[in-house]
Amino acid sequence: MKEQLAQIIRDLNLKGWSPATSTNYSFKDDQGQLWVSKSGRDKAYFEAEDFMTITDEGKGMGAYETVKPSDETLIHIKIYALFPETKVVLHSHAEGPVVLSMLESEQVAFQGFEVQKGFKGQTSHEDQIQIPIIENAQDMILFQSWMEERKNEFQHYCFIIKGHGTYAWGNSLFEAKRHLETLDYLCSCKLALKKIK
Amino acid sequence: MKEQLAQIIRDLNLKGWSPATSTNYSFKDDQGQLWVSKSGRDKAYFEAEDFMTITDEGKGMGAYETVKPSDETLIHIKIYALFPETKVVLHSHAEGPVVLSMLESEQVAFQGFEVQKGFKGQTSHEDQIQIPIIENAQDMILFQSWMEERKNEFQHYCFIIKGHGTYAWGNSLFEAKRHLETLDYLCSCKLALKKIK
Amino acid sequence: MKEQLAQIIRDLNLKGWSPATSTNYSFKDDQGQLWVSKSGRDKAYFEAEDFMTITDEGKGMGAYETVKPSDETLIHIKIYALFPETKVVLHSHAEGPVVLSMLESEQVAFQGFEVQKGFKGQTSHEDQIQIPIIENAQDMILFQSWMEERKNEFQHYCFIIKGHGTYAWGNSLFEAKRHLETLDYLCSCKLALKKIK
Amino acid sequence: MKEQLAQIIRDLNLKGWSPATSTNYSFKDDQGQLWVSKSGRDKAYFEAEDFMTITDEGKGMGAYETVKPSDETLIHIKIYALFPETKVVLHSHAEGPVVLSMLESEQVAFQGFEVQKGFKGQTSHEDQIQIPIIENAQDMILFQSWMEERKNEFQHYCFIIKGHGTYAWGNSLFEAKRHLETLDYLCSCKLALKKIK
Repeated sequence: MKEQLAQIIRDLNLKGWSPATSTNYSFKDDQGQLWVSKSGRDKAYFEAEDFMTITDEGKGMGAYETVKPSDETLIHIKIYALFPETKVVLHSHAEGPVVLSMLESEQVAFQGFEVQKGFKGQTSHEDQIQIPIIENAQDMILFQSWMEERKNEFQHYCFIIKGHGTYAWGNSLFEAKRHLETLDYLCSCKLALKKIK
Repeated sequence: MKEQLAQIIRDLNLKGWSPATSTNYSFKDDQGQLWVSKSGRDKAYFEAEDFMTITDEGKGMGAYETVKPSDETLIHIKIYALFPETKVVLHSHAEGPVVLSMLESEQVAFQGFEVQKGFKGQTSHEDQIQIPIIENAQDMILFQSWMEERKNEFQHYCFIIKGHGTYAWGNSLFEAKRHLETLDYLCSCKLALKKIK
Repeated sequence: MKEQLAQIIRDLNLKGWSPATSTNYSFKDDQGQLWVSKSGRDKAYFEAEDFMTITDEGKGMGAYETVKPSDETLIHIKIYALFPETKVVLHSHAEGPVVLSMLESEQVAFQGFEVQKGFKGQTSHEDQIQIPIIENAQDMILFQSWMEERKNEFQHYCFIIKGHGTYAWGNSLFEAKRHLETLDYLCSCKLALKKIK
Repeated sequence: MKEQLAQIIRDLNLKGWSPATSTNYSFKDDQGQLWVSKSGRDKAYFEAEDFMTITDEGKGMGAYETVKPSDETLIHIKIYALFPETKVVLHSHAEGPVVLSMLESEQVAFQGFEVQKGFKGQTSHEDQIQIPIIENAQDMILFQSWMEERKNEFQHYCFIIKGHGTYAWGNSLFEAKRHLETLDYLCSCKLALKKIK
């Protein structure tokens, strides 16, 4: 898993989704242990050994006790807590959703795109779906409380943080990646439409 | 053919044309047997063994009897039925045609682009050509009936599905790829013009 | 030279500058013989052996007598005739200049860009430079006559064909590539400015 | 360092940040000696041996006495003089900041972007930060004087030259790259917002 996820992290970086050492990633191993990316790694060179184990409070543990995990580790921990079947959490700073989120308020709606079916459970392009946009915060405890409050809006295994980026998750790496790509694509198309209308 | 097409599928994915496991592909082998891509494959990792044989009704056959083919297999089958010389059918979710199709009605017109000559039989940029846009549908039988009705509009070996993507075909992999790239490029240029005008 | 230029052709294709088998390239060897790319090659797979020798009238010669050269061979021949020091001629269908050319009339002006210095002889961003836009034509004899008439406008080793693409040349592969990239970049920036203003 | 920086230079070029042999780079070695990129190198092929040592006046020295350094060597030298802890200086011609700089006056402001934290010392997206835009000049002595005058505005280890590109620096290659990517990303997002508003 570490090798596979590290490869995907490098690939996503090539698309420009992780500028300036941004973004962070996590997975739950077969023993139920959480692993998260270390703080401040350049994603162009991300390797399997750039993951570390963490406690439930988001501190380094075991061999990694003195290592600094990603600043946003508590966001990951909250996702696993709210949706216990989650195995992988991905993050992106892709321009499409970041720019779009600055033009929308609390949610962004999509309708009429075939790719909406990339979200698990969606079977038609005809449904209107809503993806929540959460205000950005540097205070992770505050942000966790907002996640808790808005849990019911997380119907599609993802959300956007305004001016910051996207989080998407799934019960496998395959599924989490599909959700992340679905959200990015939808935001990018919607932004292109806004450039014209 | 399987190896060559699988390589092209991975290359098209690198351009962002297959987000979130979307798109599907097919070819007719020397014995006239249809092969289509299996359902739900991540195109970043598509391999020769991700193709399967299908019956005329779009079910898995032979060694693949229990395997699920692409959800859009019936679109492929209809193209081969309408245009029996077809050997390869390609599909794309590239943003250009998807976004453009949401801004146009039943057809999109192109004129004055040298690349129009990428469509077989076109010899000048001066002609105005029309590419049909078909409504998206999850009901493949219904969609097949629309294809049948609009067959005469398929002058350029391709069509667009609104909010979904493009299909293009040809009597060889080389030709099908050229048609797909031609349509994508024309849509992308037209969309750029719309951003200004 | 063949190997080097073939590599550059594949690299330019990766940037999306050669969709649908479009674009063509040529060079003059140490004996003064012209080599041009064969017709209809997919630039993703362009190899050294995809060049062929041609006569002064643009027909295949020697071992290549029966091979079809690029449809635009006469454009290449005219550039070498008008500017005898030319060693390499490059071509691009990049979206930036193609779309921009459809929004401008006979010339496009650039001023204030540092990259203008990429054109040989330019020493400042302060100069206003004009790049000619020629109407597209399928009749190569007619097009050659337009090139002849407008020779004096070819101050910067390049021109644009409306809705078609760019040509750039130089006394070396290095110089021709620099001129091609300079023109593409300037057009792309100007197009971005037009999207806002 | 030479090998690492050369690799990064080739990677940045792949993103389109160094068209037409533009951009230049430098570093200070462990002995305090400055190395700068040689003039006119195509960044697609930049190698470790394309760096040269220079004197404090920006002339080639030692084995490189007769070699021409980058035309903008004096900009690099001034950055090291103004900020003596600097170890690496990077430069980019990325379209985002170049186009944006032509639409703004003396400074460009950013607020609300998480990636602002890519600048050393920034801890929140809530702060409004200002990045200086300096007029372009071919006279490097004049440009140095402008840098001197505006030193106090260089709070974020970078500036933009109008219609030209960005410079960013840091106390390590890692930090300089992070600053360069941060500025590019912010400019690109702001430009996208301007296309809509």
